[in-house]
Amino acid sequence: MFDYNESFQSAIAALKRERRYRTFADLERKAGQFPHALWNSPGGARNVVVWCSNDYLGMGQHPKVIEAMCTAARTMGAGAGGTRNISGTNRALVQLEAELADLHNKEAALVFTSGYVSNHTGIATIARLLPDCLILSDALNHNSMIEGVRAAGCARQIWRHNDLEHLEELLSRAAPGRPKLIVFESVYSMDGDVAPLKAICDLAQRYNAMTYLDEVHAVGMYGPRGAGIAERDGVMARIDVIEGTLAKAFGTLGGYIAGSSAVVDAVRSHAPGFIFTTALPPAVAAAAIASIAHLKVSDVERMGQRAAVAATKAALRGAGLPVLATETHIVPVMVGDPALCKQASDLLLERHGIYIQPINYPTVARGTERLRITPTPAHDVRLIQQLADALVSVWQGLDLPLGRDYRYVERRAQMLAAGG
Amino acid sequence: MFDYNESFQSAIAALKRERRYRTFADLERKAGQFPHALWNSPGGARNVVVWCSNDYLGMGQHPKVIEAMCTAARTMGAGAGGTRNISGTNRALVQLEAELADLHNKEAALVFTSGYVSNHTGIATIARLLPDCLILSDALNHNSMIEGVRAAGCARQIWRHNDLEHLEELLSRAAPGRPKLIVFESVYSMDGDVAPLKAICDLAQRYNAMTYLDEVHAVGMYGPRGAGIAERDGVMARIDVIEGTLAKAFGTLGGYIAGSSAVVDAVRSHAPGFIFTTALPPAVAAAAIASIAHLKVSDVERMGQRAAVAATKAALRGAGLPVLATETHIVPVMVGDPALCKQASDLLLERHGIYIQPINYPTVARGTERLRITPTPAHDVRLIQQLADALVSVWQGLDLPLGRDYRYVERRAQMLAAGG
Repeated sequence: MFDYNESFQSAIAALKRERRYRTFADLERKAGQFPHALWNSPGGARNVVVWCSNDYLGMGQHPKVIEAMCTAARTMGAGAGGTRNISGTNRALVQLEAELADLHNKEAALVFTSGYVSNHTGIATIARLLPDCLILSDALNHNSMIEGVRAAGCARQIWRHNDLEHLEELLSRAAPGRPKLIVFESVYSMDGDVAPLKAICDLAQRYNAMTYLDEVHAVGMYGPRGAGIAERDGVMARIDVIEGTLAKAFGTLGGYIAGSSAVVDAVRSHAPGFIFTTALPPAVAAAAIASIAHLKVSDVERMGQRAAVAATKAALRGAGLPVLATETHIVPVMVGDPALCKQASDLLLERHGIYIQPINYPTVARGTERLRITPTPAHDVRLIQQLADALVSVWQGLDLPLGRDYRYVERRAQMLAAGG
Repeated sequence: MFDYNESFQSAIAALKRERRYRTFADLERKAGQFPHALWNSPGGARNVVVWCSNDYLGMGQHPKVIEAMCTAARTMGAGAGGTRNISGTNRALVQLEAELADLHNKEAALVFTSGYVSNHTGIATIARLLPDCLILSDALNHNSMIEGVRAAGCARQIWRHNDLEHLEELLSRAAPGRPKLIVFESVYSMDGDVAPLKAICDLAQRYNAMTYLDEVHAVGMYGPRGAGIAERDGVMARIDVIEGTLAKAFGTLGGYIAGSSAVVDAVRSHAPGFIFTTALPPAVAAAAIASIAHLKVSDVERMGQRAAVAATKAALRGAGLPVLATETHIVPVMVGDPALCKQASDLLLERHGIYIQPINYPTVARGTERLRITPTPAHDVRLIQQLADALVSVWQGLDLPLGRDYRYVERRAQMLAAGG
């Protein structure tokens, strides 16, 4: 007799042995008081400061956004009531898609229930519509893109992360007339590094490849209107499909693609993950519209974020902490060991009221475990100083090295990857 | 030079040639006035009556549900701000999972961003955790389950829809010690028929198979507390995993699974579609809690729906319309041709202000094209009479047969399936 429960229990036990079992912190965010939140800990509710939110600009608590959500719920109800095709297309969603097409200066946009679903069903559908398509996928692409590439079922090649020579090598090897889809991100979430968009567009043009760019960690934050890195770098018109999220800097929920009318209509008409699922509620769409429209014209949040990021990087580096150098709003502090990373996170939360989730394998490579810090406009100088002091205290308590370059962590990771 | 745009345009053109191109009706639902809505037609806004919503009980406009959504948005903000693991687990979601575990009388529950994602990543993950798993999938399972079965990557066999003998044949052929996962629905959405749950549980027990049941078209509506057909039939404890949605009878957004602590924790820890995506906003979770809690104790909506369904079936049958016999709240009126089905839908909307989306291939088999009608407690006797009159007028205008048994459509479909 096969024992089903035993299978599931042993899968959990394996994670616990590898110290990869995850416990979720039960948080109660307080609108208007972000980054402060209530942490419902086993020992009772405690006030904490959240330092790892992807609500990068705090738009989830913006009065305009909350008001738009409530107004739409009161006038149009709490749900969409159907798939997009069967009674679920609501006014707010139609307007949201127009807003997104305008944001990226594309002919059309299409909203999905999440960024994950956008990539998964979007990439798979686009590739399936191109005969004998070859997908060229960056090695560090997000899981949603990897799953989309897999679901496409066509040939795929992985190019070394941000490595233009390797990408060109693969492009030049493929038959000139064969459709090629380059799939990549602008800001990579865990290292905070940025893809060389212009050079990738040049290669795509030279080899007649189509480009699919994930800007989920950039929309709202980069470019004069918050359309992302492609806008900032002046190459938005050269990207065929821009994928983004409404759930990070825009502070709500959902994902989208923007591109030509033809590609958007083809995905709308063929993508199973779009067709066979309930549409986003009008209240969520209305909140997203308010957020996007605000960030198209307001720079206050972006400037506030940049100042907080610069101050945080300076404070942590000044304290001798191993901060990974990034040009973005993502501030990784390297640990290089899963157990120590979890312990550092636990100590920060329990002793210092600072919430930063440990980032372990498989989200990052083994040996590059880290605390991933995301300063927002709401993290002021006092909070930044508290963070630096708390980290130093935790680093000393765990006997982690201070005053050394973060690269010792990278070298350790390379050893691990080499089987050392 | 490969022409990408041409590929997408020709994919669209093919759909148009086959009359399968879908145009979405842009609706503006009015909370408190459902099923009345504004249809933003090309010619201007018009009042219509929605007859094809999956907001089956009208809970999307229930004052308690809307109030819960707004209160949560005002106090906790418009978004979750992160994945479940990285700062996105919010109090409302934790409470929602407790509410769902209680609803289904299971040890635990897990919420996903949609029912589609629940099935897709849930089925794939469960099957992957069982060594050499064999999936037995009902032939009419929803696309989200089919994609989940595919993503599992293990052996799969399709049993003829609701055919117990075929299921037993497949079960008996498999090695006794091999893990087997039976994947099926309770209420099938397009025909409105119900699976023989008790008999399937008996087979699962005899052959030591695990059961995964999709109750998305049943939760909220069947059973004393609205836990679904398994509750109604007294077999809830015998189903290993119950999957449901918050986006139909509960009127909001999201999906879930409920089961033993071990299976839920294993899916929580391994499912990519759960791990790598932003959590549902607290406002959506709070709205869902209000809806579930209400329907656990209130029978008013269920009784109202049953009365409207019975009255609608009687009125349409009395008028000689080809209504497919169902024991559920789904009332299919058979057309049997994609172009006529679309024309019938267009005439209803344009001439009678009645919105019922045509259901064509691939959602249903070719030759079984239909109008799928879903009466809710808010469809009163006057609206039902209007519907019957309008359908008769459209049927006469299109020269569709009245007074004949719907089975002529089935026979035509069988001929088509046989290549006739």
